[in-house]
Amino acid sequence: MDSIKPYKKDFDHSYTLGAFPTVELLKTRPEMALGVYLHSSFVDTVGVCELCACAGVRVEMNDRAIARVSSKENIFVVGVFRKFDETLDAAAPHILLDHPGDMGNLGTIIRTAVGFGIHDLAVIRPAADVWNPKTVRASMGAVFRLRHRVYDDFNSYRADHPSHAVYCFMLDGAVPLTRGFVPPSAPYTLVFGNEGSGLSPEYKERGTCVFIPQSPDVDSLNLPVAAAIGMFVFAT
Amino acid sequence: MDSIKPYKKDFDHSYTLGAFPTVELLKTRPEMALGVYLHSSFVDTVGVCELCACAGVRVEMNDRAIARVSSKENIFVVGVFRKFDETLDAAAPHILLDHPGDMGNLGTIIRTAVGFGIHDLAVIRPAADVWNPKTVRASMGAVFRLRHRVYDDFNSYRADHPSHAVYCFMLDGAVPLTRGFVPPSAPYTLVFGNEGSGLSPEYKERGTCVFIPQSPDVDSLNLPVAAAIGMFVFAT
Repeated sequence: MDSIKPYKKDFDHSYTLGAFPTVELLKTRPEMALGVYLHSSFVDTVGVCELCACAGVRVEMNDRAIARVSSKENIFVVGVFRKFDETLDAAAPHILLDHPGDMGNLGTIIRTAVGFGIHDLAVIRPAADVWNPKTVRASMGAVFRLRHRVYDDFNSYRADHPSHAVYCFMLDGAVPLTRGFVPPSAPYTLVFGNEGSGLSPEYKERGTCVFIPQSPDVDSLNLPVAAAIGMFVFAT
Repeated sequence: MDSIKPYKKDFDHSYTLGAFPTVELLKTRPEMALGVYLHSSFVDTVGVCELCACAGVRVEMNDRAIARVSSKENIFVVGVFRKFDETLDAAAPHILLDHPGDMGNLGTIIRTAVGFGIHDLAVIRPAADVWNPKTVRASMGAVFRLRHRVYDDFNSYRADHPSHAVYCFMLDGAVPLTRGFVPPSAPYTLVFGNEGSGLSPEYKERGTCVFIPQSPDVDSLNLPVAAAIGMFVFAT
């Protein structure tokens, strides 16, 4: 823990910035925690030290280390964790994000997915980095409660999971997603495109194209909102 | 249009940063447009100049003016508009935001509301500024398609709209908001609290307290997501 550096995507480790995601790390993936830095002015109201002690995670008070990895925010706890990659559950529903561009949106979608009991996420690159501390923070640490895998393209994902019923969210989709929509009983994959460009037309051949009825007064719903509505209808 | 300055909350005017919100301004509230600045490298693929000509809005090419009001982003069009305040429609559904703290969230909620056909917003101060260019931009210009009014407290809002059926979104709400929820036929108000602190306990006496069923694995859904689910269930 001596040479902590500002996060880069090619690191095999990343950081939780702040008490909430750090607690989530220690509660849900303690075996991935490499250490925790505390700021000298940190007041441990949430039991970080106890969680570290239980999990055998090293704690160090080090203001300079925290300043190095947490740009400008008021961060008093930083967790260091080893990144991990997992196989998605073949029997569970999946979210697939094709080229998500924004780390805040990605984290919000992860938080919503876990909130609605969906614990498997596929991401098609190029994509915002799931492990970037900004994504981890936007997820409020929910990223530790799901499995995720990054794929090069849709076909690679499909090779791993050929039998999921695929639903592509497109503004010109054929099937309106209303409150009365009856989701399939078999495992399904909800597919959402990039914030700016949506899903490419090839997706029309890849599954059932659905849309969320919305007023022509707006260009579209934003990505985390559309994903949330989709998950609410399918998973609750 | 000579002394354009970086936005401040006490101005009686504000700015649309970028082509999309500027077009929304010109299409929906041309009478509020005071002028439009174009960057010398702006390519008008969206008809800004024609909209200005139709509405009699002055256009000026002025790179320095754009740089003054649009911090660091790549902005090539800036609209200047007079702020306005309107009475909410007494017969329509309302969204009420108590102390929203984040301009991006506020803009996203406005965009979602208009997307689901809700055009009336009450805001209780202290609150993020609805007219801040960041809010306007996060709303994708949808802010011009709704009426909004800022109140000092809930009772002032209630004095104006005593008969709306009030639904308060609280994590410990009594009524689960599922897909099968039957919304009232009479006008209603959906009330959402601050991002960090939610609604204060007094709201339990102010209406029906509802909650969105969610996993204990997350702290909560984020505010724009919770508001989107609420609007989807009530308004679609």
